[in-house]
Amino acid sequence: MKTTILNTAGAISSLNQKYADLAKHRWDRLTKPRGSLGRLEDIVCQIAAIRENVSVNVAKKQVYIFAGDHGVAAEGVSAYPQEVTPQMVLNFLQGGAAINALSNQVGAEVKVIDVGVKHNFNGLAGLIHKKVRPGTRNFIAGSAMTEAEASAAIGVGLELAQYASAEGVDLIATGEMGVGNTTASSAIAAALMKCDVEAVTGLGAGLTDTAKKHKIDIIKQALAVNRERLTDPFNILAALGGLEIAGLCGLIIGGALHRIPMMIDGFIASAAALVAIKLNPAIQDFLIFAHQSKEPGHRLLLQHIGAKPILDLEMRLGEGSGAALAMSIVAAAVKLYSEMATFEEAQVSGKRDA
Amino acid sequence: MKTTILNTAGAISSLNQKYADLAKHRWDRLTKPRGSLGRLEDIVCQIAAIRENVSVNVAKKQVYIFAGDHGVAAEGVSAYPQEVTPQMVLNFLQGGAAINALSNQVGAEVKVIDVGVKHNFNGLAGLIHKKVRPGTRNFIAGSAMTEAEASAAIGVGLELAQYASAEGVDLIATGEMGVGNTTASSAIAAALMKCDVEAVTGLGAGLTDTAKKHKIDIIKQALAVNRERLTDPFNILAALGGLEIAGLCGLIIGGALHRIPMMIDGFIASAAALVAIKLNPAIQDFLIFAHQSKEPGHRLLLQHIGAKPILDLEMRLGEGSGAALAMSIVAAAVKLYSEMATFEEAQVSGKRDA
Repeated sequence: MKTTILNTAGAISSLNQKYADLAKHRWDRLTKPRGSLGRLEDIVCQIAAIRENVSVNVAKKQVYIFAGDHGVAAEGVSAYPQEVTPQMVLNFLQGGAAINALSNQVGAEVKVIDVGVKHNFNGLAGLIHKKVRPGTRNFIAGSAMTEAEASAAIGVGLELAQYASAEGVDLIATGEMGVGNTTASSAIAAALMKCDVEAVTGLGAGLTDTAKKHKIDIIKQALAVNRERLTDPFNILAALGGLEIAGLCGLIIGGALHRIPMMIDGFIASAAALVAIKLNPAIQDFLIFAHQSKEPGHRLLLQHIGAKPILDLEMRLGEGSGAALAMSIVAAAVKLYSEMATFEEAQVSGKRDA
Repeated sequence: MKTTILNTAGAISSLNQKYADLAKHRWDRLTKPRGSLGRLEDIVCQIAAIRENVSVNVAKKQVYIFAGDHGVAAEGVSAYPQEVTPQMVLNFLQGGAAINALSNQVGAEVKVIDVGVKHNFNGLAGLIHKKVRPGTRNFIAGSAMTEAEASAAIGVGLELAQYASAEGVDLIATGEMGVGNTTASSAIAAALMKCDVEAVTGLGAGLTDTAKKHKIDIIKQALAVNRERLTDPFNILAALGGLEIAGLCGLIIGGALHRIPMMIDGFIASAAALVAIKLNPAIQDFLIFAHQSKEPGHRLLLQHIGAKPILDLEMRLGEGSGAALAMSIVAAAVKLYSEMATFEEAQVSGKRDA
């Protein structure tokens, strides 16, 4: 299974610049000074290159929320009790969470996947049931997942990307829910970026400074205990990751494979993206980093891969909230590109020195 | 007239924090960690304080584009010929410009005001006809406007704000069109902020570096010629401003007077806002700075008043484009605030240490 995943990720190629250039050419004919729409122009060019189509469309949008629990939550690394993971899954299904309001605003469909919540949902309608196991093992005592479990969780994401492609989805947002998952993400980031745990660990959903020190100690313990397992990106994910992070990683690989542009949310979704990028750097071409989260590790992670997010609004909620919010900027960019008049159509004079 | 304007601006009081606190209290009951929606929470609290109502609504949105020409365009300070001002006015009315696509996207109505275009529109339908004079005088030879002309242009904005209030407008975006108006804005910014012309002068709609040097020389000449007139914010606006900048200044004063939150666009709209703020610092409480433009003077101006814009997307188009785009972020914030479930409603557990 691991070999199949590595081969799948490895088969993805970088974007062909041709379609981005064609899109830029169209932008330059529209009634505005060249380049004056800044990053809105770049985003559309990137999507044109991903889709290999100069006509850009983001009408069909989906938000994927992978939910999973973390054995390490037993160490008291989160400000919220573990029962909040299933409670928030129900809130997503009932439409009461932030991601619901934001998805409605931008016209995106919300998909909620139980890939590893420590709760029996008994076939609850509306939820995508893909539980690999009820939460990861506590990684301070060994690997969070076996190779087979990590592969299975990645496989869930790969499968969902394939469905999305078959359904004709134009734009995907990545979200997650899992009490303890900033701890797992900090551990993954420290291992993949080979940096100090302190630099990539923050307050999560609202720790005190004392509790943050404890969280850092726990992550250091986990890195020490798992040291011999941290040999490649896949093994790092299996040893330190969450099932929801693995699911997201699979969705990201699969999205790239099927050429669907993906909005990457905050720290946890970016940790999943980092694993995918470490498996194959070409995958980054398919990703649009939505926002700068307040988690300090997120800033370092984005710097590490050279990504500049669209928004920086001091958000730190997860669920895909930043990704769904940034979808409205992407949708606006596509609308400009598709609807603005050209200089010829509007009979507007060009630059004096042009 | 000047006295009336000064009195009108001077009568505006700072916001009462009570409504912002009530809105914050509501945010803290919603199913998310406290403060985790970052600046989205702050924006809604500001609007609650402006409206003095904890129920926040931004359903009725309008974008005001003030158009005017500049005598200084004769000095070759712009990359585009002066005829582009009326051509773009027609483009706005025909729906082909960037601001049209962005306004449609966010559901805002576009109002285009001729407050000083050097073109006879012959009562063209759809345009708001408020021409004070056909373009300003060339400010390298004296004052751009007389006191009466500046007052009249400000009066146009005040009047439109009054109509907007009567119509029940919830949110206003400020836009402009006028070949040469970054030159006027740089001159105003340098005079009001008492800083070097070089620091606040940029490439406008696309100058070469050589042409930028010429633009800087022209602004320095204008500041020298008008030196004795630059005695207060009103006189600085009259001597150096554009009719569209004066119109925007009036709209901003009037919007604050009628307690309508206003999205301030890029450098030119911010120069108009700076005049209003220098007349009465309390006016800043009513303004939401939409985006960081690529014009270097804009960054300095926002630092000068301590404003942090919502977006930073390297845009430099004007028309209100950044303000209309940021309206979608404000609308999303209000939707979250209005639609999210509370912890009680969703039966989600609170913080462990709460």
